[in-house]
Amino acid sequence: MSAFDDLMAHERQTQALSQVAGRLGWDQETVMPRGAGAQRAEEMAAVAAILHERRTSPAVGDWLAAIDDAALDAVGQAQMRHIRRDYARATRLPAALAAEIARTRSLAHQRWAEARGAEDVAHFLPMLERMIELKRQEGAALADGGDPYDALLQDYEPGATAAGLEAMFGALRPRLVALRAACLEKPAPEALSGDYDESAQMRLSRVLAKTFGYDMARGRVDKAVHPFSSGSGDDVRITTRTNPADPFNCFYSTIHEVGHAAYEQGIDPAYGLTPLGQGVSMGVHESQSRIYENQLGRSRAFTGWLYERMREAFGDLGLAGPDAFYAAVNALKPGYIRTEADEVQYNLHVLLRFDLERDLIAGKLEAADLEEAWNARFEADFGYAVDKPSNGCLQDVHWSEGLFGYFPTYTLGNVYAGCLMQALRAAVPDWEAQLAEGDLSGVTGWLRENVQRHGGLYEPREVITRACGQEPSEGPLLEYLEAKFGALYGV
Amino acid sequence: MSAFDDLMAHERQTQALSQVAGRLGWDQETVMPRGAGAQRAEEMAAVAAILHERRTSPAVGDWLAAIDDAALDAVGQAQMRHIRRDYARATRLPAALAAEIARTRSLAHQRWAEARGAEDVAHFLPMLERMIELKRQEGAALADGGDPYDALLQDYEPGATAAGLEAMFGALRPRLVALRAACLEKPAPEALSGDYDESAQMRLSRVLAKTFGYDMARGRVDKAVHPFSSGSGDDVRITTRTNPADPFNCFYSTIHEVGHAAYEQGIDPAYGLTPLGQGVSMGVHESQSRIYENQLGRSRAFTGWLYERMREAFGDLGLAGPDAFYAAVNALKPGYIRTEADEVQYNLHVLLRFDLERDLIAGKLEAADLEEAWNARFEADFGYAVDKPSNGCLQDVHWSEGLFGYFPTYTLGNVYAGCLMQALRAAVPDWEAQLAEGDLSGVTGWLRENVQRHGGLYEPREVITRACGQEPSEGPLLEYLEAKFGALYGV
Repeated sequence: MSAFDDLMAHERQTQALSQVAGRLGWDQETVMPRGAGAQRAEEMAAVAAILHERRTSPAVGDWLAAIDDAALDAVGQAQMRHIRRDYARATRLPAALAAEIARTRSLAHQRWAEARGAEDVAHFLPMLERMIELKRQEGAALADGGDPYDALLQDYEPGATAAGLEAMFGALRPRLVALRAACLEKPAPEALSGDYDESAQMRLSRVLAKTFGYDMARGRVDKAVHPFSSGSGDDVRITTRTNPADPFNCFYSTIHEVGHAAYEQGIDPAYGLTPLGQGVSMGVHESQSRIYENQLGRSRAFTGWLYERMREAFGDLGLAGPDAFYAAVNALKPGYIRTEADEVQYNLHVLLRFDLERDLIAGKLEAADLEEAWNARFEADFGYAVDKPSNGCLQDVHWSEGLFGYFPTYTLGNVYAGCLMQALRAAVPDWEAQLAEGDLSGVTGWLRENVQRHGGLYEPREVITRACGQEPSEGPLLEYLEAKFGALYGV
Repeated sequence: MSAFDDLMAHERQTQALSQVAGRLGWDQETVMPRGAGAQRAEEMAAVAAILHERRTSPAVGDWLAAIDDAALDAVGQAQMRHIRRDYARATRLPAALAAEIARTRSLAHQRWAEARGAEDVAHFLPMLERMIELKRQEGAALADGGDPYDALLQDYEPGATAAGLEAMFGALRPRLVALRAACLEKPAPEALSGDYDESAQMRLSRVLAKTFGYDMARGRVDKAVHPFSSGSGDDVRITTRTNPADPFNCFYSTIHEVGHAAYEQGIDPAYGLTPLGQGVSMGVHESQSRIYENQLGRSRAFTGWLYERMREAFGDLGLAGPDAFYAAVNALKPGYIRTEADEVQYNLHVLLRFDLERDLIAGKLEAADLEEAWNARFEADFGYAVDKPSNGCLQDVHWSEGLFGYFPTYTLGNVYAGCLMQALRAAVPDWEAQLAEGDLSGVTGWLRENVQRHGGLYEPREVITRACGQEPSEGPLLEYLEAKFGALYGV
């Protein structure tokens, strides 16, 4: 066995254990007995510690020193790119700092939940300050002389830089603010009303999952408090949720998670249980969930098909017809909450967080001034004031968990989805006719072939560039949004 | 940190990972997507390899050398007894032999399933021969000069010896053969007939589980092909099965698994995720499942209560009354299959296997002669000939998986259950009145206090001796069976 073979055997076991950790997470959110929480936390901590030990093992360092990447084929070189990057990251982070962050995360999370419940920012501040300080230290340790925020960003989007994202996001913001304001000046479209049986929602959810190419033999759909997708390869499970008053929440959560899951299921099986066997970044992952959910799932063509399926399942929907249904699916509403936002407003929520978190890590903004900065920015972009912290700076869990550098991948995913949809329209010219028949195999097949199957073979930006034939930019997303919502709202 | 503290920290992580492995097994049998089998096998193999690596780690050897057991308290000394034994076992077995056994297990299992389906013993023989040879080697390596079969037995029942079991089992056999023959000469009792709704069976199963003290907040009941219990501490799950024609199968499988699960749930929480935090042996485990299922669950007092619950759930059962119901629950039937056998005949099946497998490991019996030996022994004890291999030597999965030394723990569990029931009758004199009201808290509370809570603190035989105030023997089981079935059948 060569050093490369030995290293890959070690990696396969590590990846398998990492899959197991994911399965524990699924179990916890779906089927775990309610009294098992404390024991489960200890089980997950043990698996995390064993994973960390394996990832920082001196044996890995020895193998890395012995391997000549140039002598490997392209796939081997791509594996090495991931392994070298992960090892550098894992060994650069001092163990004491990692442990302190883990400890603070659980305390900060609890404080955040209490503070949000009590609408009391001050209650969260000491833990937030501590977390920011620790993440600054982590960023500095990982950056090795470079920019700390960029270093944090690499965990979620390898190759991305804050400067590159700023350029993209800077171009998005004014046009989204203008589009939002113009649409909201117009009369609101008819909304769905009534009660929708939750079992029937789950049944239609499963139909939607299959329609979007989710392989039920290698996955399953369950109900959970939060929709999520979990696992890679042949065991990729999704969850969704139901609300009798809001079936769209169930259906579009399902389609969103199917986008994530189809990506994982679509990766070349040859990469199974290796570093290439998972979605390559949060941004590319989100590009799949968003293009499934929005560009495809909220298109006029597909909503026409969905309208009929909903009428079959629930009877008359009280809407004038498929055009009214399309308008209802795509309605803009004033609001405070990122996760409830529509396609137009969603990215404004993200840009706000991106700008604030960069300032927090850079030391240009202190935790004590966060609420004021948040509220000022929100009013500037949305035109009305935040009414309470749970609708403002306490709404998201991310910062309490130390997730700095995560938010921008949401909008990057939307930008990528815009680029991919432009390419997809050219590659599958009759996509709308197909979707109108409920046939998603053409569009999801194109995405599988051009994005999903590559897994971690290419760097994130390169995946999109190869699929689209050009470098990604914010242009296609903006054009798509302005055209779609311009037509819907007559602006 | 002392060497003992370091070792225990390592053990906690290992135990946690071992719990995780159990959870993967549960997942596989209940909720896993059907296409995930191959990936799951690789995940489980990786976890097994990591567990083996941790159990044979030279660091453990260094800690063991540095620790003076005599300086520890009683609990610490018990922990060390387990850890030293497990480490000796893990390091005595040559890695190449362990790998060859694992490889052969999967091939032999497949061959066995094919052979059973085709009623073709010869098809299984080459793999069975190979497995026996490997287990002889394993026994010799573990025995370190002692008896190989005894060495294999230690995996399931630490402290037991074949000679000790032979003495017990030798006394059981003639009286069970005689009791069986006498009962089967009598007219068969009325049997249950009709169809029993499977959802209603599951609902009543959950009621039974709670009635027998199973903590549903720290467990769950699901349907699976085979009933089993899995996990320790705060996450102990059971499965059961349903058959419209045979509700007793569902209910008594549930009660049996609840016995196993209640044992795990009942262990002192201070031992959680340590070597003491699990049932101490297969025999003691089976004593709990069997006393729940048989001495308690099939008692006249409890069946009287169950009769009323079944009538509530299913309407008239077509039986004359609670005495007829009690007779139906405890009916003896001629048959070939161990897992379908009643209290009287079950142990005869086990004794047969115990005698044959000792001869196989000792080299006194070769695989080629197994079928003949099996059939001769079966006819001697049961009075009729085996009609086909799937009803004879191909019926059990155990030997194909290399499980030699496992079978006797089933009967040892029954012997222990007999002893415990004798002690329980003295300790809870009005147990029958309690059971007649569906109140199992008195009897399960006694078992928790006297057996279950100790986990691995005492050696298996010592647990029973302490609970009963005397050394275990086969006498109480025989007296119980002869009294119960003598009265039922008038013999």
